[in-house]
Amino acid sequence: MSEMFAKVALLGVGLIGSSMAHAMRRAGLAGHIAGYSHRIETVDLARTVGFADSLYTDAAACVKDADLVVLCTPVGTFKALAEEIAPVLKPGAILSDAGSVKGAVIRDVGPFVPEGVHFIPAHPIAGTEQSGPTAGFAELFDGRWCILTPPEETDPQAVAKLKAFWEALGSNVEVMDAHRHDLVLAITSHVPHLIAYNIVGTADDLENVTEGEVIKYSAGGFRDFTRIAASDPTMWRDIFLNNKEAVLEVLGRFGEDLSALQRAIRWGDGETLYNLFARTRAIRRSIIDAGQDTASPNFGRGEKK
Amino acid sequence: MSEMFAKVALLGVGLIGSSMAHAMRRAGLAGHIAGYSHRIETVDLARTVGFADSLYTDAAACVKDADLVVLCTPVGTFKALAEEIAPVLKPGAILSDAGSVKGAVIRDVGPFVPEGVHFIPAHPIAGTEQSGPTAGFAELFDGRWCILTPPEETDPQAVAKLKAFWEALGSNVEVMDAHRHDLVLAITSHVPHLIAYNIVGTADDLENVTEGEVIKYSAGGFRDFTRIAASDPTMWRDIFLNNKEAVLEVLGRFGEDLSALQRAIRWGDGETLYNLFARTRAIRRSIIDAGQDTASPNFGRGEKK
Ligand SMILES: NC(=O)c1ccc[n+]([C@@H]2O[C@H](COP(=O)([O-])OP(=O)(O)OC[C@H]3O[C@@H](n4cnc5c(N)ncnc54)[C@H](OP(=O)(O)O)[C@@H]3O)[C@@H](O)[C@H]2O)c1
Ligand SMILES: NC(=O)c1ccc[n+]([C@@H]2O[C@H](COP(=O)([O-])OP(=O)(O)OC[C@H]3O[C@@H](n4cnc5c(N)ncnc54)[C@H](OP(=O)(O)O)[C@@H]3O)[C@@H](O)[C@H]2O)c1
Repeated sequence: MSEMFAKVALLGVGLIGSSMAHAMRRAGLAGHIAGYSHRIETVDLARTVGFADSLYTDAAACVKDADLVVLCTPVGTFKALAEEIAPVLKPGAILSDAGSVKGAVIRDVGPFVPEGVHFIPAHPIAGTEQSGPTAGFAELFDGRWCILTPPEETDPQAVAKLKAFWEALGSNVEVMDAHRHDLVLAITSHVPHLIAYNIVGTADDLENVTEGEVIKYSAGGFRDFTRIAASDPTMWRDIFLNNKEAVLEVLGRFGEDLSALQRAIRWGDGETLYNLFARTRAIRRSIIDAGQDTASPNFGRGEKK
Repeated sequence: MSEMFAKVALLGVGLIGSSMAHAMRRAGLAGHIAGYSHRIETVDLARTVGFADSLYTDAAACVKDADLVVLCTPVGTFKALAEEIAPVLKPGAILSDAGSVKGAVIRDVGPFVPEGVHFIPAHPIAGTEQSGPTAGFAELFDGRWCILTPPEETDPQAVAKLKAFWEALGSNVEVMDAHRHDLVLAITSHVPHLIAYNIVGTADDLENVTEGEVIKYSAGGFRDFTRIAASDPTMWRDIFLNNKEAVLEVLGRFGEDLSALQRAIRWGDGETLYNLFARTRAIRRSIIDAGQDTASPNFGRGEKK
């Protein structure tokens, strides 16, 4: 693969920023990779890992002359960062991000984008429960989807270029509007994270079951939920504060459905339970067939030899 | 390891029954392993896999002369099976099970246990989302906990023998009363399964998000839930019908906690969200330290190379 951008600036060098850097290097996509983080400790750690050509604690210095700028910090920081870097963005550059919500990003960043800069929000649907500069790896985006949500008036050539870039990072790319993105992600990511955090919290708070018991017997199913409930708290707080409407809508549906199950249990209605439990299997099958999860039992945790 | 029982009868040769057979063979624990299943197709399949010395579609024939009998079918079938085999149980034999609930098993099976037979309910906290005779493997129980819930008057020597047996299968063993088991498992297994089934059902029912979208973007978190929502529907229906009280109690707490989160999202209360999200990480750390899950990102699904 040949160079697509002479200079790429990554604002935020955690899991997503560092993985993008590794994947860019793997494919030779950038002449120069500049990274920014707001704490000097993070910059030092990123330097040790060595995925960037230059590193800064000053965002404006980092984006100077960059042909592609990607915001990779928690979405609650985007507005201030956009305001800070707007004056130094290079005409003709693409300004993008990796934030997990898209409507709020357009609302927060859009007003600061200077004439001549192409603003194309993006969201790679790939991640792990780990964070920081040491968590990244080049294969993170391989075979996963990346969603672009360009505002209507965006230059199609710039969109095509960013699409090609994400494909070169290993992703499949889909374009949709920001509102639809936020609704789809509410069900495929945001509400699942919320209920995982919630069940782990509930378990932690029960007075009549000890934490030791919860931990010992977690292989009964609970442990699966603790993985996503171990994700970065700042990132997830910002997601829920910025996708309120869609999350509350899906959560309302989840609650109604759960009440129906609760009622079925109370009244011993085995048929209702069986019918739901029998149809959910098909969805997992489809996810495996679509290459979005492993078919190995227990996610191939390595117990079956 | 030397032989512990001359003949072991497994009533049910699905995931749990076949895994027990494989693990018994690995350690040489049984002189003869007899298996039963109620459908001839399952018996034929079990014969092909070859983990049993004899196979039956007649439960009474299977348990004849057995020193250890283990019920490994869905818990809703235990009562009828117990009634059927009671007359032929060998005096001095141990009658046990692998059912995921324990109070209901004592209620359903207890009355049929003949004088001189040791009835010791058990529950291995180990499984996968797969089922049937081909799903089993010898390592399933390694490092996992098995809970025994002997009624009060049970012979301590028989309990010690069954404990040693499960340890030889690879498990750690804990003894507790059936009521406590059912409460602990409600939070560590039953309610997590219920909410996983529920969110997958909710996703399937949304009119404004297509199934194709749910599948494509499932790597955002949703896919984790589909694994346990792919578990056997009959088994899980029987669990909820037989652990009603504890499941409804824990579900009530889960619902209250979720309402508080919903309210925090609605009112933009980032602090409440952050505080919960920050404390749940510690529980995952403890589960990993206790050897009950892998530390690899994404459960080591094999994406990080
Ligand atoms: N993790 C995922 O699964 C995933 C998936 C898709 C998209 N995303 C999105 O990608 C973005 C980054 O996520 P990540 O997982 O890479 O997070 P991460 O590993 O926690 O890294 C976050 C980065 O942002 C910086 N940062 C944190 N607070 C900041 C602040 N107040 N001002 C300036 N910089 C700050 C951090 O620097 P310091 O350490 O110096 O504070 C770090 O460089 C988020 O918007 C998230 O929604 C995440
Ligand atoms: N899977 C887990 O994660 C797990 C973990 C711990 C404990 N358990 C408990 O272990 C037991 C077995 O679970 P499993 O996962 O091994 O299930 P499985 O793989 O579905 O196997 C179930 C076995 O029970 C037989 N069976 C089903 N319905 C029957 C009926 N009406 N009458 C007689 N036999 C019947 C099946 O035979 P046919 O195919 O011939 O019907 C099969 O041999 C359950 O009580 C469950 O609660 C399961």
